[in-house]
Amino acid sequence: MIVIGEKINSTRKSIKEAIAKKDASYLQKLARDQAQAGADYLDVNTGAFPEEEVQLMEWLVKIINQAVDLPLALDSANPAALEAGLKAIADNTRPIINSITAENAKFREVVPLVLKYEASVLALALDDNGISKTVEDRFGVTQRLIEALCAAGVEQNRIFLDPLIQPISVQNDFGLIAIEVIRRVKQQFPEVKTTCGLSNISFGLPQRAKLNRYFLAMAVAAGLDSAILDPLDRELMDAVNVSEALSGKDRFCKNYIKAYRQGRA
Amino acid sequence: MIVIGEKINSTRKSIKEAIAKKDASYLQKLARDQAQAGADYLDVNTGAFPEEEVQLMEWLVKIINQAVDLPLALDSANPAALEAGLKAIADNTRPIINSITAENAKFREVVPLVLKYEASVLALALDDNGISKTVEDRFGVTQRLIEALCAAGVEQNRIFLDPLIQPISVQNDFGLIAIEVIRRVKQQFPEVKTTCGLSNISFGLPQRAKLNRYFLAMAVAAGLDSAILDPLDRELMDAVNVSEALSGKDRFCKNYIKAYRQGRA
Repeated sequence: MIVIGEKINSTRKSIKEAIAKKDASYLQKLARDQAQAGADYLDVNTGAFPEEEVQLMEWLVKIINQAVDLPLALDSANPAALEAGLKAIADNTRPIINSITAENAKFREVVPLVLKYEASVLALALDDNGISKTVEDRFGVTQRLIEALCAAGVEQNRIFLDPLIQPISVQNDFGLIAIEVIRRVKQQFPEVKTTCGLSNISFGLPQRAKLNRYFLAMAVAAGLDSAILDPLDRELMDAVNVSEALSGKDRFCKNYIKAYRQGRA
Repeated sequence: MIVIGEKINSTRKSIKEAIAKKDASYLQKLARDQAQAGADYLDVNTGAFPEEEVQLMEWLVKIINQAVDLPLALDSANPAALEAGLKAIADNTRPIINSITAENAKFREVVPLVLKYEASVLALALDDNGISKTVEDRFGVTQRLIEALCAAGVEQNRIFLDPLIQPISVQNDFGLIAIEVIRRVKQQFPEVKTTCGLSNISFGLPQRAKLNRYFLAMAVAAGLDSAILDPLDRELMDAVNVSEALSGKDRFCKNYIKAYRQGRA
């Protein structure tokens, strides 16, 4: 499982404050903690500062790069901020651009950055009609988006496809739609990686963390390769290990047994 | 989820002793407890007494029928014991015969009972070559077994297909094989019910109950309709509720919310 650590996100109050104060050591500790907890990428988001996003993204990337060796997922709706982050990144890591969609304007803005910086890209399954509400439509958008990226010159293995998770409290089969899209992507485009943000699934319901963990297991069984999540949530990281063991992705169940022996289970 | 309560099984020491002593009140309490915990069927197994199985099955069915209204899953390798149980059953419930397979002799022995007593039947995905080790082969056996049952006159909705769960500690993809067979059965034979015994999945590994719960969720997302399990295991029954909510099988998440409000979550 490719874990994208979600914590350095300016939409969270404590992160917004730390960025505003240029509190590098707080943010660097959060980077190190996530790395130690098993993150493979760190998401960095400066969207709470629309006026200064370009400079803040550059600064944030630099201080995180000083703290950890992990590649970053640059999370912004502003192409100039994405490019500032891409330029600031240490040479030896391939970042993820977070995100592109099948919306015409968004696609045209972001594709050149993906190509120029040879980045990976997190591709959200929506287009100018918004997020579709059936498996057929959602997979249709997904397919067109992957094919358009490939046609533009992006290799399948640089695409992280996010089927978009919506709350089961809003429409009961929203979980199944995402799971089925993941399954079809892995069937039709085996090199494409699948990813998602988990927590939307449980919006509006009690005991959300538990729902998120079980949903993760279901998605991993369907072929989920990656998730954007809080790697400091030990129960959730345990669910990652359990899900991989049950899905045949943990040879000889080695990681599962190791986590148990190390008291992480 | 159709829950088949597994507790009245003579291969368990306490049950074997209770049957040997004809301790009806102990066994009847176990029947009532499982019913109250949400079982839809009760499995009854007298296999530990090969010499007296016919009489004991008849006795066990009668005392359980006195205690609860639930239909039974008659669990025996002995057709005479199955028939004794079928004859003893209260008129108004359709039992499950547990089990039939695609082994030639077994199939020929059990089909007449299914037809004569208009029973449902738990069908195990194995044939005279044993349990196959790939999805294609396992589903091939499954398909032939379902088609043979239908050809003999058993309606699809009376079949509980068990893909057979084997331990991931033995072969890493054994969980995925079972899940993929479940998915294909529901796709190709939508009226057939899928079921399984869960606990084999975790054989040989630590923290088995947790593995069983997460595997249940994965299987429910793939279309599992039923499971043979311990309904007195509250965490497992909670996993049933969670899995159904996440799989769009709990309208408005009503059962999930109710279980939470009643302190069962």
